[in-house]
Amino acid sequence: MPIDPVALTADLIRCPSVTPVEGGALVLLEKLLTEGGFTCTRVDRGGIANLYARWGRQGANRTFGFNGHTDVVPIGNQDDWTVDPFGAEIKDGYMYGRGATDMKSGVAAFAAAAIDFVQDTPPDGAVVLAITGDEEADALDGTTALLDWMAANNEVMSVCLVGEPTCPSEMGETMKIGRRGSLTAWFTVNGEQGHSAYPHRANNPLPAMARLVDRLSSHVLDEGTDHFDPSTLAVVTIDTGNPATNVIPASCTAAVNVRFNDAHSSQSIIDWFAEEVAQIKGTFGVDIDTKVKVSGESFVTPPGDLSDLIGNAVKAETGRTPELSTSGGTSDARFVKNHCPVVEFGLVGKTMHQVDERVLVAQISQLKAIYKRILTDYFA
Amino acid sequence: MPIDPVALTADLIRCPSVTPVEGGALVLLEKLLTEGGFTCTRVDRGGIANLYARWGRQGANRTFGFNGHTDVVPIGNQDDWTVDPFGAEIKDGYMYGRGATDMKSGVAAFAAAAIDFVQDTPPDGAVVLAITGDEEADALDGTTALLDWMAANNEVMSVCLVGEPTCPSEMGETMKIGRRGSLTAWFTVNGEQGHSAYPHRANNPLPAMARLVDRLSSHVLDEGTDHFDPSTLAVVTIDTGNPATNVIPASCTAAVNVRFNDAHSSQSIIDWFAEEVAQIKGTFGVDIDTKVKVSGESFVTPPGDLSDLIGNAVKAETGRTPELSTSGGTSDARFVKNHCPVVEFGLVGKTMHQVDERVLVAQISQLKAIYKRILTDYFA
Ligand SMILES: [Zn+2]
Ligand SMILES: [Zn+2]
Repeated sequence: MPIDPVALTADLIRCPSVTPVEGGALVLLEKLLTEGGFTCTRVDRGGIANLYARWGRQGANRTFGFNGHTDVVPIGNQDDWTVDPFGAEIKDGYMYGRGATDMKSGVAAFAAAAIDFVQDTPPDGAVVLAITGDEEADALDGTTALLDWMAANNEVMSVCLVGEPTCPSEMGETMKIGRRGSLTAWFTVNGEQGHSAYPHRANNPLPAMARLVDRLSSHVLDEGTDHFDPSTLAVVTIDTGNPATNVIPASCTAAVNVRFNDAHSSQSIIDWFAEEVAQIKGTFGVDIDTKVKVSGESFVTPPGDLSDLIGNAVKAETGRTPELSTSGGTSDARFVKNHCPVVEFGLVGKTMHQVDERVLVAQISQLKAIYKRILTDYFA
Repeated sequence: MPIDPVALTADLIRCPSVTPVEGGALVLLEKLLTEGGFTCTRVDRGGIANLYARWGRQGANRTFGFNGHTDVVPIGNQDDWTVDPFGAEIKDGYMYGRGATDMKSGVAAFAAAAIDFVQDTPPDGAVVLAITGDEEADALDGTTALLDWMAANNEVMSVCLVGEPTCPSEMGETMKIGRRGSLTAWFTVNGEQGHSAYPHRANNPLPAMARLVDRLSSHVLDEGTDHFDPSTLAVVTIDTGNPATNVIPASCTAAVNVRFNDAHSSQSIIDWFAEEVAQIKGTFGVDIDTKVKVSGESFVTPPGDLSDLIGNAVKAETGRTPELSTSGGTSDARFVKNHCPVVEFGLVGKTMHQVDERVLVAQISQLKAIYKRILTDYFA
């Protein structure tokens, strides 16, 4: 009997798996997949629950992988919700609840598609599901833990589809073949405190900071590349905290967030920062500390077999040919891309992370149909 | 019998006249001056005590005025003092206490000089003392109240000497013939909040702020004038307060403090701000609010009779010809200059506003001698 992805989505929403809590979601999936003939392994690490499931021969040449997460972001203020955030209530064709779009529906759709597919038409190869309980938080022991464990245990994926919601407003509009990289840098300019009546006796860090921020923010990183929009730099804060207008402060800190395409790497951005900082230090005679946190490198799976496979299945089920996009924030695809070609495709993500997060019930079934067709075509 | 300015300074230090409290200091002076033949009037306003004292005919053509204050800044942390801040203790030739240099010694010296002078050699003219209890705080009801009252009551000064400490390290080094003006401006740049991954959908105020601050702080206001050092602009703070590195903030505020010479007025500086702000608004498409607080206009009493009179007396008593300076912060001379030529001369101010504030005992007597010689020469 085919698995109902709508009922499965509802069951998953009722598991309160607010990141990084497992909440019963992976336990439920492990049971279902085991019953469906999958070999399941819990790959927990650092207190995070992760689930690996394989149908078919280990290390098969053709192994199709799905990746997704069952953890969800916090609900925020419950009073702002018009429904129980963990109730999976259906109204006017929508199922409501935290994770309805991001991404319990996606996990339900690919789990249901995979179970049905291997039962209906057992393929010559393997189907793998790598599902994590830690995507929304630090993601240190989530998909990374699964990939590490896979590498150590000769478990592979030939290609991988991440089931994150990718469509801005209509089902089938967009798939993601890559993501920009992201990093945040904090610059602290240190000068010397003094009285504002005698600026020449002090060494004011603020003019240096203003020049640095002006230079960084007015620099054109690139004009975009084949598959990417132009890289961006956003100055997110400049802070001094000096309440005394007759005092020149000793230091000032600014933070910038860079979203960079494949014309750059985090290292090339860091090198650029270092050049700019050196120039400002020379001009103003200040010290500047730089701290950088890299969230992810940019990557792209160039258009080809995998994107064609997914595009064709989406077109067949929805009538739309999805655009190949690299926009948006980061996802676990940034880890998977080190192991195999990876593309992201899922349903409409409009309400993700919001109150009254909801999914069109019909889209869940449509998504399952797309995923099942992808598997069928892949192994055909 | 001559008045001992050292004992008088000690008596004044023992009055805990932390601004704006009278603390007994003006009461003590009123009694002393009345006994010395002065007509005294308390010119209190807005809860602030002020003392006006005149010897001689009201409205005399030659009326020499002294101006000073008996209020003192707070002592800070008493544990940091090695002496009682209101004890007037003498150690190694120094008298210690809050107000020892700023400026109970100055008030004591000119009160003692004035009383002695009118008794020894009654002049053809008048000697006036305008002493306030509110110079260190808002100064709204201090010297201004005295000057307002004088104008309303046909009380005049032909020239005025402000007894603030003016010498950086050696007695007699410096007199002040003017002061720079001072104003503080707050700029708030308002843009539009957004996600740092999509800067083109937001309107980040920070690049505009950086450019504005860079332009303001790198602008050369002037190269100095006949009697003034170059004007200065000190950026004192830039603040955003955005803790989220994935959020572009809606607004940012900066403050700048300008010390300007007689090449400018507060209005010309404000006009310059308006031009710069208009340019930044045009370039970046942001809104910018500007608030300005003017602390005082620049002013100068050009070198001439008054500075010569004082310079000669200082040279006679100390062997030094004082430099004519316009440096430093503001003083009540900024109010007096609207009424008559004004010059500031006093002793070494090195420890003013600090813990263990102290004055060389010998300098108090020397200062009285200088002030008395100035009176003698003025009426000669
Ligand atoms: Zn997600
Ligand atoms: Zn003072």
